[in-house]
Amino acid sequence: MSKLLRTTVVAHMLLREMVREGDVVVDATAGNGHDTLFLAKLVGIRGKVYAFDIQEEALKKTERLLAQHNCLAQVEFIHDGHEKIGQYIKEQVRCVMYNLGYLPGGDKSIITQGTTTISSLEQATHLLSKEGVISLMVYSGHPGGLSEAEEVECFVKSLASPPWHVLKWQKINGTQSGPYLMLLYKMVK
Amino acid sequence: MSKLLRTTVVAHMLLREMVREGDVVVDATAGNGHDTLFLAKLVGIRGKVYAFDIQEEALKKTERLLAQHNCLAQVEFIHDGHEKIGQYIKEQVRCVMYNLGYLPGGDKSIITQGTTTISSLEQATHLLSKEGVISLMVYSGHPGGLSEAEEVECFVKSLASPPWHVLKWQKINGTQSGPYLMLLYKMVK
Repeated sequence: MSKLLRTTVVAHMLLREMVREGDVVVDATAGNGHDTLFLAKLVGIRGKVYAFDIQEEALKKTERLLAQHNCLAQVEFIHDGHEKIGQYIKEQVRCVMYNLGYLPGGDKSIITQGTTTISSLEQATHLLSKEGVISLMVYSGHPGGLSEAEEVECFVKSLASPPWHVLKWQKINGTQSGPYLMLLYKMVK
Repeated sequence: MSKLLRTTVVAHMLLREMVREGDVVVDATAGNGHDTLFLAKLVGIRGKVYAFDIQEEALKKTERLLAQHNCLAQVEFIHDGHEKIGQYIKEQVRCVMYNLGYLPGGDKSIITQGTTTISSLEQATHLLSKEGVISLMVYSGHPGGLSEAEEVECFVKSLASPPWHVLKWQKINGTQSGPYLMLLYKMVK
Protein backbone atom coordinates (compact mmCIF):
# COMPACT_ATOMS: atom_id res chain seq x y z
CA MET A 1 0.00 0.00 0.00
CA SER A 2 3.00 2.27 0.45
CA LYS A 3 2.99 2.72 -3.34
CA LEU A 4 0.34 5.35 -2.65
CA LEU A 5 3.09 7.51 -1.18
CA ARG A 6 4.81 7.64 -4.57
CA THR A 7 3.72 10.74 -6.42
CA THR A 8 4.18 9.06 -9.80
CA VAL A 9 1.69 6.34 -8.81
CA VAL A 10 -0.93 8.97 -7.95
CA ALA A 11 -0.20 10.87 -11.18
CA HIS A 12 -0.69 7.75 -13.28
CA MET A 13 -3.87 6.84 -11.37
CA LEU A 14 -5.40 10.24 -12.14
CA LEU A 15 -4.20 10.44 -15.76
CA ARG A 16 -5.62 6.98 -16.46
CA GLU A 17 -9.07 8.53 -15.91
CA MET A 18 -8.44 11.10 -18.64
CA VAL A 19 -6.39 9.49 -21.42
CA ARG A 20 -8.27 7.13 -23.74
CA GLU A 21 -7.30 4.61 -26.39
CA GLY A 22 -6.63 6.36 -29.68
CA ASP A 23 -5.67 9.68 -28.06
CA VAL A 24 -2.73 11.86 -29.16
CA VAL A 25 -0.49 12.72 -26.19
CA VAL A 26 2.95 14.14 -25.41
CA ASP A 27 5.78 13.19 -23.07
CA ALA A 28 7.63 16.52 -22.98
CA THR A 29 10.55 15.09 -21.00
CA ALA A 30 11.04 11.44 -21.92
CA GLY A 31 13.94 10.88 -19.49
CA ASN A 32 14.19 7.16 -18.77
CA GLY A 33 10.99 6.52 -20.67
CA HIS A 34 8.65 5.44 -17.87
CA ASP A 35 5.99 8.03 -18.67
CA THR A 36 6.36 7.46 -22.42
CA LEU A 37 5.68 3.76 -21.84
CA PHE A 38 2.74 4.55 -19.55
CA LEU A 39 1.21 6.81 -22.22
CA ALA A 40 1.95 4.40 -25.10
CA LYS A 41 0.09 1.62 -23.29
CA LEU A 42 -2.88 3.91 -22.58
CA VAL A 43 -3.33 5.25 -26.11
CA GLY A 44 -2.52 1.93 -27.80
CA ILE A 45 -1.67 1.27 -31.41
CA ARG A 46 -4.47 3.56 -32.67
CA GLY A 47 -3.09 6.46 -30.64
CA LYS A 48 0.11 8.49 -30.78
CA VAL A 49 2.76 9.61 -28.31
CA TYR A 50 5.21 12.41 -29.13
CA ALA A 51 8.28 11.91 -26.90
CA PHE A 52 10.69 14.83 -26.51
CA ASP A 53 14.12 14.91 -24.94
CA ILE A 54 17.04 17.24 -25.45
CA GLN A 55 19.46 14.45 -24.48
CA GLU A 56 20.12 11.69 -27.01
CA GLU A 57 21.01 9.30 -24.18
CA ALA A 58 17.49 9.72 -22.75
CA LEU A 59 15.77 9.09 -26.06
CA LYS A 60 17.86 5.94 -26.64
CA LYS A 61 16.89 4.61 -23.19
CA THR A 62 13.26 5.42 -23.90
CA GLU A 63 13.37 3.74 -27.29
CA ARG A 64 14.88 0.57 -25.77
CA LEU A 65 12.21 0.47 -23.07
CA LEU A 66 9.39 0.94 -25.55
CA ALA A 67 10.86 -1.74 -27.83
CA GLN A 68 10.97 -4.21 -24.91
CA HIS A 69 7.25 -3.62 -24.38
CA ASN A 70 6.40 -3.77 -28.06
CA CYS A 71 5.07 -0.20 -28.02
CA LEU A 72 7.34 1.49 -30.57
CA ALA A 73 4.72 1.77 -33.31
CA GLN A 74 2.68 4.49 -31.62
CA VAL A 75 5.65 6.66 -30.55
CA GLU A 76 7.43 9.47 -32.43
CA PHE A 77 10.75 10.45 -30.86
CA ILE A 78 11.84 14.07 -31.09
CA HIS A 79 15.44 14.92 -30.20
CA ASP A 80 14.89 18.53 -29.23
CA GLY A 81 13.93 20.68 -26.25
CA HIS A 82 10.27 20.62 -25.23
CA GLU A 83 10.09 24.41 -25.67
CA LYS A 84 9.86 23.63 -29.41
CA ILE A 85 6.64 21.66 -28.86
CA GLY A 86 4.59 24.08 -30.97
CA GLN A 87 6.92 23.68 -33.94
CA TYR A 88 6.60 19.91 -34.01
CA ILE A 89 2.98 19.34 -33.06
CA LYS A 90 0.16 20.79 -35.13
CA GLU A 91 -2.76 18.74 -33.83
CA GLN A 92 -4.81 18.82 -30.64
CA VAL A 93 -3.58 16.61 -27.83
CA ARG A 94 -5.31 15.04 -24.80
CA CYS A 95 -2.37 15.15 -22.41
CA VAL A 96 1.12 16.58 -21.98
CA MET A 97 3.37 15.18 -19.24
CA TYR A 98 6.36 17.03 -17.78
CA ASN A 99 8.96 15.67 -15.41
CA LEU A 100 11.03 18.67 -14.36
CA GLY A 101 14.61 18.57 -13.09
CA TYR A 102 17.44 16.38 -14.40
CA LEU A 103 17.65 12.94 -16.01
CA PRO A 104 17.85 10.37 -13.17
CA GLY A 105 21.20 8.62 -13.45
CA GLY A 106 22.34 11.16 -16.06
CA ASP A 107 24.19 14.49 -16.05
CA LYS A 108 22.78 16.48 -13.14
CA SER A 109 24.02 19.77 -14.61
CA ILE A 110 21.51 19.44 -17.46
CA ILE A 111 18.25 20.57 -15.90
CA THR A 112 14.99 21.99 -17.15
CA GLN A 113 14.82 25.79 -16.78
CA GLY A 114 11.97 28.04 -15.72
CA THR A 115 12.02 30.17 -18.87
CA THR A 116 11.92 27.30 -21.36
CA THR A 117 9.49 25.29 -19.22
CA ILE A 118 7.03 28.18 -19.12
CA SER A 119 7.40 28.80 -22.85
CA SER A 120 6.67 25.12 -23.41
CA LEU A 121 3.71 25.18 -21.01
CA GLU A 122 2.21 28.18 -22.77
CA GLN A 123 2.33 26.35 -26.10
CA ALA A 124 0.95 23.20 -24.45
CA THR A 125 -2.09 25.08 -23.12
CA HIS A 126 -3.01 25.94 -26.73
CA LEU A 127 -2.33 22.44 -28.09
CA LEU A 128 -4.56 20.82 -25.47
CA SER A 129 -7.98 19.71 -26.70
CA LYS A 130 -11.22 20.96 -25.08
CA GLU A 131 -10.97 18.27 -22.42
CA GLY A 132 -7.39 17.55 -21.55
CA VAL A 133 -4.74 17.66 -18.87
CA ILE A 134 -1.18 18.83 -18.44
CA SER A 135 0.74 16.94 -15.77
CA LEU A 136 3.73 18.51 -14.04
CA MET A 137 6.00 16.53 -11.74
CA VAL A 138 8.03 19.18 -9.95
CA TYR A 139 11.35 18.57 -8.19
CA SER A 140 12.58 21.49 -6.15
CA GLY A 141 15.44 19.89 -4.18
CA HIS A 142 18.28 20.22 -6.72
CA PRO A 143 20.22 23.44 -7.49
CA GLY A 144 17.97 25.60 -9.66
CA GLY A 145 14.95 23.44 -8.85
CA LEU A 146 13.32 25.77 -6.37
CA SER A 147 13.42 28.85 -8.60
CA GLU A 148 12.01 26.86 -11.53
CA ALA A 149 9.26 25.49 -9.25
CA GLU A 150 8.33 29.01 -8.12
CA GLU A 151 8.22 30.36 -11.68
CA VAL A 152 6.11 27.44 -12.86
CA GLU A 153 3.70 27.72 -9.94
CA CYS A 154 3.28 31.43 -10.57
CA PHE A 155 2.44 30.69 -14.21
CA VAL A 156 -0.09 27.94 -13.52
CA LYS A 157 -1.84 29.99 -10.84
CA SER A 158 -2.42 32.71 -13.44
CA LEU A 159 -4.45 30.38 -15.71
CA ALA A 160 -8.10 31.45 -15.93
CA SER A 161 -10.71 29.28 -14.18
CA PRO A 162 -12.75 28.16 -16.09
CA PRO A 163 -11.60 26.56 -18.32
CA TRP A 164 -8.52 25.72 -16.21
CA HIS A 165 -8.62 23.83 -12.94
CA VAL A 166 -5.13 23.60 -11.50
CA LEU A 167 -4.74 21.04 -8.72
CA LYS A 168 -1.72 20.43 -6.56
CA TRP A 169 -0.86 17.21 -4.71
CA GLN A 170 1.90 17.69 -2.16
CA LYS A 171 3.31 16.23 1.05
CA ILE A 172 3.01 18.88 3.76
CA ASN A 173 4.60 17.31 6.86
CA GLY A 174 8.18 16.26 7.69
CA THR A 175 10.85 16.41 5.00
CA GLN A 176 9.53 17.21 1.56
CA SER A 177 12.45 16.05 -0.55
CA GLY A 178 10.34 14.18 -3.11
CA PRO A 179 8.54 15.69 -6.09
CA TYR A 180 5.11 17.22 -6.02
CA LEU A 181 2.43 17.03 -8.63
CA MET A 182 0.36 19.65 -10.40
CA LEU A 183 -2.44 18.71 -12.78
CA LEU A 184 -3.76 21.41 -15.12
CA TYR A 185 -7.19 20.28 -16.25
CA LYS A 186 -8.74 22.09 -19.23
CA MET A 187 -12.52 21.68 -19.41
CA VAL A 188 -14.17 23.80 -22.08
CA LYS A 189 -17.95 23.53 -21.99
CA MET B 1 -14.32 13.44 -17.20
CA SER B 2 -15.20 16.55 -15.22
CA LYS B 3 -15.95 14.28 -12.28
CA LEU B 4 -12.18 14.41 -11.70
CA LEU B 5 -12.64 18.01 -10.60
CA ARG B 6 -14.77 16.86 -7.68
CA THR B 7 -12.60 16.45 -4.61
CA THR B 8 -14.83 13.70 -3.20
CA VAL B 9 -14.26 11.62 -6.35
CA VAL B 10 -10.48 11.88 -5.93
CA ALA B 11 -10.77 11.07 -2.22
CA HIS B 12 -12.78 7.93 -2.92
CA MET B 13 -10.38 6.89 -5.68
CA LEU B 14 -7.42 7.08 -3.31
CA LEU B 15 -9.17 5.49 -0.33
CA ARG B 16 -10.30 2.57 -2.48
CA GLU B 17 -6.62 1.63 -2.77
CA MET B 18 -6.28 1.40 1.02
CA VAL B 19 -9.53 0.02 2.46
CA ARG B 20 -10.12 -3.71 2.03
CA GLU B 21 -13.03 -6.09 2.48
CA GLY B 22 -13.38 -7.03 6.14
CA ASP B 23 -11.73 -3.84 7.45
CA VAL B 24 -12.99 -1.83 10.41
CA VAL B 25 -13.42 1.84 9.50
CA VAL B 26 -15.02 5.04 10.78
CA ASP B 27 -17.12 7.79 9.27
CA ALA B 28 -16.56 10.49 11.88
CA THR B 29 -19.12 12.86 10.32
CA ALA B 30 -21.87 10.82 8.70
CA GLY B 31 -23.77 13.86 7.38
CA ASN B 32 -25.96 12.76 4.48
CA GLY B 33 -24.39 9.31 4.56
CA HIS B 34 -22.49 9.30 1.26
CA ASP B 35 -19.15 8.40 2.83
CA THR B 36 -20.76 5.87 5.18
CA LEU B 37 -22.25 4.13 2.16
CA PHE B 38 -18.95 4.30 0.28
CA LEU B 39 -17.14 2.69 3.25
CA ALA B 40 -19.87 0.10 3.89
CA LYS B 41 -19.60 -1.11 0.29
CA LEU B 42 -15.80 -1.30 0.52
CA VAL B 43 -15.59 -3.28 3.77
CA GLY B 44 -18.61 -5.48 2.95
CA ILE B 45 -20.60 -7.66 5.28
CA ARG B 46 -17.47 -9.06 6.97
CA GLY B 47 -16.27 -5.56 7.81
CA LYS B 48 -17.57 -2.82 10.09
CA VAL B 49 -18.30 0.89 9.79
CA TYR B 50 -18.75 3.10 12.85
CA ALA B 51 -20.80 6.13 11.77
CA PHE B 52 -20.84 9.17 14.07
CA ASP B 53 -22.98 12.25 13.93
CA ILE B 54 -24.01 14.72 16.58
CA GLN B 55 -27.23 15.47 14.68
CA GLU B 56 -30.01 12.90 14.82
CA GLU B 57 -31.35 14.16 11.48
CA ALA B 58 -28.02 13.25 9.83
CA LEU B 59 -27.99 9.75 11.30
CA LYS B 60 -31.55 9.13 10.17
CA LYS B 61 -30.69 10.21 6.62
CA THR B 62 -27.62 7.99 6.68
CA GLU B 63 -29.58 5.03 7.98
CA ARG B 64 -32.20 5.43 5.24
CA LEU B 65 -29.50 5.61 2.56
CA LEU B 66 -27.73 2.53 3.86
CA ALA B 67 -31.00 0.62 4.08
CA GLN B 68 -31.77 1.47 0.45
CA HIS B 69 -28.44 -0.09 -0.53
CA ASN B 70 -28.85 -3.10 1.73
CA CYS B 71 -25.73 -2.17 3.72
CA LEU B 72 -27.16 -1.74 7.22
CA ALA B 73 -25.70 -4.96 8.65
CA GLN B 74 -22.10 -3.75 8.73
CA VAL B 75 -22.84 -0.28 10.17
CA GLU B 76 -23.04 0.83 13.82
CA PHE B 77 -24.61 4.28 14.24
CA ILE B 78 -23.37 6.48 17.08
CA HIS B 79 -25.38 9.56 17.96
CA ASP B 80 -22.59 11.58 19.52
CA GLY B 81 -19.80 13.98 18.60
CA HIS B 82 -16.76 12.49 16.88
CA GLU B 83 -14.53 13.87 19.64
CA LYS B 84 -15.79 10.90 21.68
CA ILE B 85 -14.34 8.46 19.16
CA GLY B 86 -11.90 6.98 21.69
CA GLN B 87 -14.70 6.20 24.13
CA TYR B 88 -16.70 4.19 21.62
CA ILE B 89 -14.00 2.43 19.62
CA LYS B 90 -11.54 0.11 21.28
CA GLU B 91 -10.17 -1.71 18.24
CA GLN B 92 -7.71 -0.75 15.51
CA VAL B 93 -9.21 0.77 12.39
CA ARG B 94 -8.01 1.04 8.79
CA CYS B 95 -9.56 4.37 7.94
CA VAL B 96 -11.29 7.38 9.49
CA MET B 97 -13.11 9.85 7.25
CA TYR B 98 -13.93 13.43 8.22
CA ASN B 99 -16.10 15.88 6.36
CA LEU B 100 -15.64 19.20 8.15
CA GLY B 101 -18.10 22.10 8.13
CA TYR B 102 -21.89 21.86 8.34
CA LEU B 103 -24.50 19.32 7.27
CA PRO B 104 -25.41 20.10 3.63
CA GLY B 105 -29.08 21.05 3.58
CA GLY B 106 -29.14 21.20 7.38
CA ASP B 107 -28.60 23.85 10.07
CA LYS B 108 -25.58 25.88 8.95
CA SER B 109 -25.01 27.16 12.48
CA ILE B 110 -24.03 23.66 13.61
CA ILE B 111 -20.46 23.31 12.39
CA THR B 112 -17.46 21.23 13.34
CA GLN B 113 -15.02 23.16 15.54
CA GLY B 114 -11.23 23.26 15.54
CA THR B 115 -10.84 22.20 19.17
CA THR B 116 -13.11 19.15 19.00
CA THR B 117 -11.87 18.21 15.52
CA ILE B 118 -8.25 18.18 16.72
CA SER B 119 -9.16 16.22 19.85
CA SER B 120 -10.91 13.70 17.61
CA LEU B 121 -7.97 13.58 15.19
CA GLU B 122 -5.52 12.93 18.00
CA GLN B 123 -7.56 9.95 19.17
CA ALA B 124 -7.91 8.75 15.58
CA THR B 125 -4.13 8.74 15.08
CA HIS B 126 -3.88 6.20 17.94
CA LEU B 127 -6.79 4.07 16.76
CA LEU B 128 -5.37 3.74 13.27
CA SER B 129 -3.72 0.41 12.48
CA LYS B 130 -0.09 0.17 11.31
CA GLU B 131 -1.16 0.81 7.75
CA GLY B 132 -4.08 3.15 7.61
CA VAL B 133 -5.34 6.51 6.49
CA ILE B 134 -7.29 9.44 7.89
CA SER B 135 -9.16 11.44 5.28
CA LEU B 136 -10.06 15.07 5.87
CA MET B 137 -12.36 16.98 3.56
CA VAL B 138 -11.89 20.60 4.58
CA TYR B 139 -14.31 23.43 3.82
CA SER B 140 -13.01 26.87 4.64
CA GLY B 141 -15.61 29.08 2.97
CA HIS B 142 -18.28 29.21 5.72
CA PRO B 143 -18.09 31.37 8.88
CA GLY B 144 -15.66 29.65 11.25
CA GLY B 145 -14.40 27.39 8.47
CA LEU B 146 -11.13 29.17 7.83
CA SER B 147 -9.98 29.19 11.45
CA GLU B 148 -10.83 25.49 11.81
CA ALA B 149 -8.93 24.75 8.60
CA GLU B 150 -5.88 26.61 9.87
CA GLU B 151 -5.92 24.81 13.24
CA VAL B 152 -6.34 21.42 11.59
CA GLU B 153 -3.58 22.09 9.07
CA CYS B 154 -1.24 23.17 11.86
CA PHE B 155 -1.97 19.91 13.71
CA VAL B 156 -1.47 17.60 10.74
CA LYS B 157 1.78 19.31 9.74
CA SER B 158 3.13 18.53 13.21
CA LEU B 159 2.73 14.75 12.74
CA ALA B 160 6.10 12.95 12.63
CA SER B 161 7.28 11.56 9.28
CA PRO B 162 7.70 8.58 9.36
CA PRO B 163 5.29 7.04 10.16
CA TRP B 164 3.00 9.83 8.93
CA HIS B 165 2.81 11.07 5.38
CA VAL B 166 0.38 13.94 5.11
CA LEU B 167 -0.69 14.80 1.58
CA LYS B 168 -2.80 17.72 0.45
CA TRP B 169 -4.87 17.93 -2.74
CA GLN B 170 -6.02 21.46 -3.50
CA LYS B 171 -7.10 23.71 -6.34
CA ILE B 172 -4.61 26.56 -6.59
CA ASN B 173 -5.94 28.80 -9.39
CA GLY B 174 -9.06 30.95 -9.72
CA THR B 175 -11.73 30.83 -7.04
CA GLN B 176 -11.16 28.15 -4.43
CA SER B 177 -14.62 27.93 -2.94
CA GLY B 178 -14.79 24.15 -2.91
CA PRO B 179 -13.32 21.81 -0.31
CA TYR B 180 -9.76 20.58 -0.25
CA LEU B 181 -8.52 17.17 0.76
CA MET B 182 -5.86 16.03 3.19
CA LEU B 183 -4.90 12.38 3.51
CA LEU B 184 -2.92 11.33 6.57
CA TYR B 185 -1.24 8.04 5.72
CA LYS B 186 0.22 6.02 8.60
CA MET B 187 2.82 3.50 7.47
CA VAL B 188 4.63 1.75 10.33
CA LYS B 189 7.40 -0.53 9.04
